[in-house]
Amino acid sequence: MVSKKEIKFIRSLQSGKHRLATGFFLVEGEKSLVELLNSSWKTELALLTAAFLNKYPNLKNIRKTRIIEADRELLHKAGSLITNESGIAVAIIPAAVQFIEKSDRLILAAENLKDPGNLGTLLRIADWYGIREILLSENSVDLYNPKVIHSSMGSFLRVHVHYKNLVKVFQNKHMPVIGTFPEGENIYISRLPDRGYVLMGNESQGISDELLPWIDLRVSIPRFGKAESLNVAVAAAVILDNFMRNRR
Amino acid sequence: MVSKKEIKFIRSLQSGKHRLATGFFLVEGEKSLVELLNSSWKTELALLTAAFLNKYPNLKNIRKTRIIEADRELLHKAGSLITNESGIAVAIIPAAVQFIEKSDRLILAAENLKDPGNLGTLLRIADWYGIREILLSENSVDLYNPKVIHSSMGSFLRVHVHYKNLVKVFQNKHMPVIGTFPEGENIYISRLPDRGYVLMGNESQGISDELLPWIDLRVSIPRFGKAESLNVAVAAAVILDNFMRNRR
Repeated sequence: MVSKKEIKFIRSLQSGKHRLATGFFLVEGEKSLVELLNSSWKTELALLTAAFLNKYPNLKNIRKTRIIEADRELLHKAGSLITNESGIAVAIIPAAVQFIEKSDRLILAAENLKDPGNLGTLLRIADWYGIREILLSENSVDLYNPKVIHSSMGSFLRVHVHYKNLVKVFQNKHMPVIGTFPEGENIYISRLPDRGYVLMGNESQGISDELLPWIDLRVSIPRFGKAESLNVAVAAAVILDNFMRNRR
Repeated sequence: MVSKKEIKFIRSLQSGKHRLATGFFLVEGEKSLVELLNSSWKTELALLTAAFLNKYPNLKNIRKTRIIEADRELLHKAGSLITNESGIAVAIIPAAVQFIEKSDRLILAAENLKDPGNLGTLLRIADWYGIREILLSENSVDLYNPKVIHSSMGSFLRVHVHYKNLVKVFQNKHMPVIGTFPEGENIYISRLPDRGYVLMGNESQGISDELLPWIDLRVSIPRFGKAESLNVAVAAAVILDNFMRNRR
């Protein structure tokens, strides 16, 4: 059984303040739960539906976690999803990994990223393209926001996110910074390096003036129609795809 | 002034049932409002903030629309956005445009698309890549859902969306259907046609068995990391980008 107090505690983890105070975060949705419960990440408690438990009887961490069987109504009450047919886990926020520039790879960087769905999607994209690290300016959305975790579809377990002062990182960099600008070089034609920081700007303001001095290459995605811009995660995917396509 | 009854009416348009019964839909957010009020689409009523009206005094349709000045609190009460600093318009759903296959172009098609944010993002992507038409299976999310309109960033004004039985359309097609499958040809290498239907499957189930007989070309986006899949809108953008890149 789960007490009212526990439901209230689980709900409270939707807020960044409570995550910071307790060191816990929420994982919801089938795909993310399966990956979490098969990983080496520590989980305190999981409310899981009978259907989920039947479908996945052999998840590695199930025995190490306090499991409570829950129905959809309870999951709706305790979690952030409107419909949740699998469960909610309360997991432990791991210690931050130190950021060390490894100068032989692509790193995705984003400035002042605000939308949790965008960060989750960026994690999934980075994980698809084999990018191991995402660098975010310190004023960006929290990685452990439930919407980030949910939309990352498990990729939060594999991609490291670092909150950094981007100016300070770029002052000490040994790789080029590639930024997207409307007047940048056509990315279909441009010679793209096989290592560097691929920098995405804020959803509505783009890349700030403060970072402009550190940009080594300005690229643009060719446009064939009339939309003013692409969503930041979509743009990141198209750029990374061009880098990878270039590389073969 | 706006009456309680009107606020209730505006709120009711968040539901598809009420949109169908009344023929109205909601447009929210700065970018979409500016484009709507500069377009030939008919708007019944708009609640706009003083800041929005000051910033855009010359929008074409402002004179033809009943304008009510509103503050953020009222917009929060009447609309679907948590923060809305610009306004809400009640616009008239235009008559559906007939779908006629024009066999010289790319058409984006999606089956059983469920997430409103994904449809909005697909509209924006189609509009970026110069795709004029999106074909959706009849069980897909409603175009006039406020989240679709909002995330399309104005592209709903330019891209036509048709709800169709996809099997029936494909039975009479004169162009290839291109589908994405994990075992498809590498899209970096594959010879892509410059016309056809680019078909995206459902967010979790992919392309259904019913449509498989109509697929002429199976492609895949190369993967370099460990994510199991890409978000449907992200995948569509990467595929369209490869088509366009191919074409030059």
